Amino acid sequence: MCATAILFSTISSIVSADDHGLSQASIEHASTLRDTAMAGSGAYAIVESLTTEVGPRLAGSESEARARDWGKKTLQSLGFENVRIETFEMETWERGEEHASLVSPFPQPLAITALGGSVATPPEGLEAEVAIFESLAALEAALPGSLDGRIAYVGHAMQATQNGSSYGFYGRLRREGASIAAARGASAILIRSIGTDSHRMPHTGQMRYSEEAPRIPAAALSNPDADQIERIALRGKPIRARLKLTPRFVGTRLSGNVIGEIVGSERPEEIVVIGAHLDSWDQGTGAVDDGAGIGIATAAAKLILDGGKRPRRTIRVIYWGAEEVGLLGGSAYLEANRGELANHIIGTESDFGAGRVWQMNAQVSKEGQAVVDLIGQLVVPIGIARGDMDKAGSGPDLTPMVRAGLPSFRFAQDGMDYFDLHHTPDDTLDKIEPAALDQNVAAFAVFAWLAADSTVVFRRAASSELEK
Amino acid sequence: MCATAILFSTISSIVSADDHGLSQASIEHASTLRDTAMAGSGAYAIVESLTTEVGPRLAGSESEARARDWGKKTLQSLGFENVRIETFEMETWERGEEHASLVSPFPQPLAITALGGSVATPPEGLEAEVAIFESLAALEAALPGSLDGRIAYVGHAMQATQNGSSYGFYGRLRREGASIAAARGASAILIRSIGTDSHRMPHTGQMRYSEEAPRIPAAALSNPDADQIERIALRGKPIRARLKLTPRFVGTRLSGNVIGEIVGSERPEEIVVIGAHLDSWDQGTGAVDDGAGIGIATAAAKLILDGGKRPRRTIRVIYWGAEEVGLLGGSAYLEANRGELANHIIGTESDFGAGRVWQMNAQVSKEGQAVVDLIGQLVVPIGIARGDMDKAGSGPDLTPMVRAGLPSFRFAQDGMDYFDLHHTPDDTLDKIEPAALDQNVAAFAVFAWLAADSTVVFRRAASSELEK
Repeated sequence: MCATAILFSTISSIVSADDHGLSQASIEHASTLRDTAMAGSGAYAIVESLTTEVGPRLAGSESEARARDWGKKTLQSLGFENVRIETFEMETWERGEEHASLVSPFPQPLAITALGGSVATPPEGLEAEVAIFESLAALEAALPGSLDGRIAYVGHAMQATQNGSSYGFYGRLRREGASIAAARGASAILIRSIGTDSHRMPHTGQMRYSEEAPRIPAAALSNPDADQIERIALRGKPIRARLKLTPRFVGTRLSGNVIGEIVGSERPEEIVVIGAHLDSWDQGTGAVDDGAGIGIATAAAKLILDGGKRPRRTIRVIYWGAEEVGLLGGSAYLEANRGELANHIIGTESDFGAGRVWQMNAQVSKEGQAVVDLIGQLVVPIGIARGDMDKAGSGPDLTPMVRAGLPSFRFAQDGMDYFDLHHTPDDTLDKIEPAALDQNVAAFAVFAWLAADSTVVFRRAASSELEK
Repeated sequence: MCATAILFSTISSIVSADDHGLSQASIEHASTLRDTAMAGSGAYAIVESLTTEVGPRLAGSESEARARDWGKKTLQSLGFENVRIETFEMETWERGEEHASLVSPFPQPLAITALGGSVATPPEGLEAEVAIFESLAALEAALPGSLDGRIAYVGHAMQATQNGSSYGFYGRLRREGASIAAARGASAILIRSIGTDSHRMPHTGQMRYSEEAPRIPAAALSNPDADQIERIALRGKPIRARLKLTPRFVGTRLSGNVIGEIVGSERPEEIVVIGAHLDSWDQGTGAVDDGAGIGIATAAAKLILDGGKRPRRTIRVIYWGAEEVGLLGGSAYLEANRGELANHIIGTESDFGAGRVWQMNAQVSKEGQAVVDLIGQLVVPIGIARGDMDKAGSGPDLTPMVRAGLPSFRFAQDGMDYFDLHHTPDDTLDKIEPAALDQNVAAFAVFAWLAADSTVVFRRAASSELEK
């Protein structure tokens, strides 16, 4: 740790206490937390426990309820304070059977999965000619009525990026494709999975219907199956497919956010939020999405809890419920805690897998930037570069609060292989490298400690006007 | 191709025509065939056609019948002679539904698949406590009656090898595990897949019941699911699981071998066999197992067909039927062609995926060894080393003929990742590298041409005594 010691002396000389309101002892403590995490953070054991003892935990399901029990018990047994569950109601969707096959010209089964929120096919399934579109833009260019009862197939193959920034572009097909196809007359839509692997693993994920078009069944094909359909299409013969999906909404069920705290020593009412989402899709065990985040946030807070110093402000760990189906936990939390919003100082979430952090982004006040700069310098030795310092976003579940004025901070994880596993049965524990989790924990501990032990206002003057 | 030219002059100087009965022109022709194949053999297009236009083709099924039609049409359109299908009858097994889940202590679904030939569970499924065994040896050590209605789980995790030699050792669990467990009282068996990947892809494959034990349902768990069960077992609580399988034997159906030839110019009655098996398991499209072999053998023969020289002996290309369920095509062929057995000079099969050949093995007469040596020297430039020259085996479908005295020859493909895909839904075209197929074709063309253009007797004096 020689390099770290040299770095640390550099930091102390360039950042004065006046800029960030943090003592040298506090900065040294952050550095110790970081090094302790890198030597073994315990995050993997937490993910192991969640994914083994609960497994899949679809929003609103009985298994998500068991995950909340697991979360409460875990936070209590680790010694957090004020451990509680804030429940909320939600309309709950369940996957049913899902089968698809090509009927002609070359009969064969297809590996598919229903998109979250999809309606069912008729109970006996449906069979129709397939209209092939190589991109979402091509589908959008089709005339209303032109699909005429056919099944729309849309290619639009996702490409991997380090920062995951193309999820929005490619993911629009999953989110909006059904209604775009239905508006043109389609009876169902099959999309190429929003995923970057080449396994027979279709990727699920939430979709939404617009009010303007009929609700048609929507499913994703694995990439090899999409390749197959495209190869067959090149042969020029009409393609007919059969599709059967039996998902349904089962009514109003409970979800909830699980909360635990390290109560601040001087300003207990001021809150720094760290967390991850507790729910997962139903086919994998949600190891990478987002068991990893649960392990990272929990282990970082636990290191602080065990570090022998209590921060000035409260650190609130939140396990968000029902993220996958539309950030329901984040919205419910804002609703329930709107009166306390101004006391939420800053926050971040880990929800981009189990890869290493490579960059740090933020959007805070000038005063807050001094603390962010300090965090940035403390995480250089663990491979994290300074990124965009005017980037809104603290992770999905904090989006409602960020929109309402919460200052933004986020560690960017390497996501080159994130969409290989994302929303597939393959999202299981064996895909996680414990040392990469430790690096994330080190970064989270530095952030949470320094943000909570400082007294600076991270909120930009302008952004407070956004608050309702 | 400078290095090749140098090599070739070396060969001509060290091997005289007296040793192998081959003219210098014939050897030069083999070298040209090799180089032509390396520049682009056409094998990939053949696999692409089979896997796209037929897809999965389970032994005895309607899709295997379509594969035979495809095979006959393909061999005819490529210009082979005497193209025909030799059919045989077989008892045909079909996969049904397959579901498994843990009931306690941690309820969650499990990714499983029925082993080929397995009986069904009761229609409503079965639920029982799970008895954990970490290896086949541990299961065998259990006392008769000790499993008492429980579901046996057996670990026995396969390790990858370059030559695939551990398939026999690990695969015994799949083949024999059900009866071993049933003899000890088990109501069903769940095995860790005989596979080396870490995806939620259970590996199927044929199993056999012994006469001495009740027939119990048998299924494989994916490796991540097996890991999960073993992690849960470490927590020490009883594990209960539910299993539903509905496979069945549907009666006697047809399978068949598809045959095409290049008729020899001088000794048309003498036959050199090359081939691969046409059937596949039902979940993937059988690209690697064994579409690749179909592409390799066909492209090699086609190169010879197009090479402007007819070999002295006949080259017979055989697409074997119903290999996966017990080498039925190989046995039926021997039965149907027993009178011609002595005219089968030598043969080989490609059935170990789409990886490059790294070694050559054989078991032939001293006279035949001179030709094998020549083949060996011609394939050194494409990365193939000399292996065991007293190794019986020409590939699975030739096993009945090798047992009856057929001389052995085989190119060993690199199989380090073969058991990642083997017998899973993931065995699809995207896993094949065309250039690796070309190298296989180059090797096959050298073998087929030189074996068929020579006049040597490959059969060892002793081995002919084995003939019935």
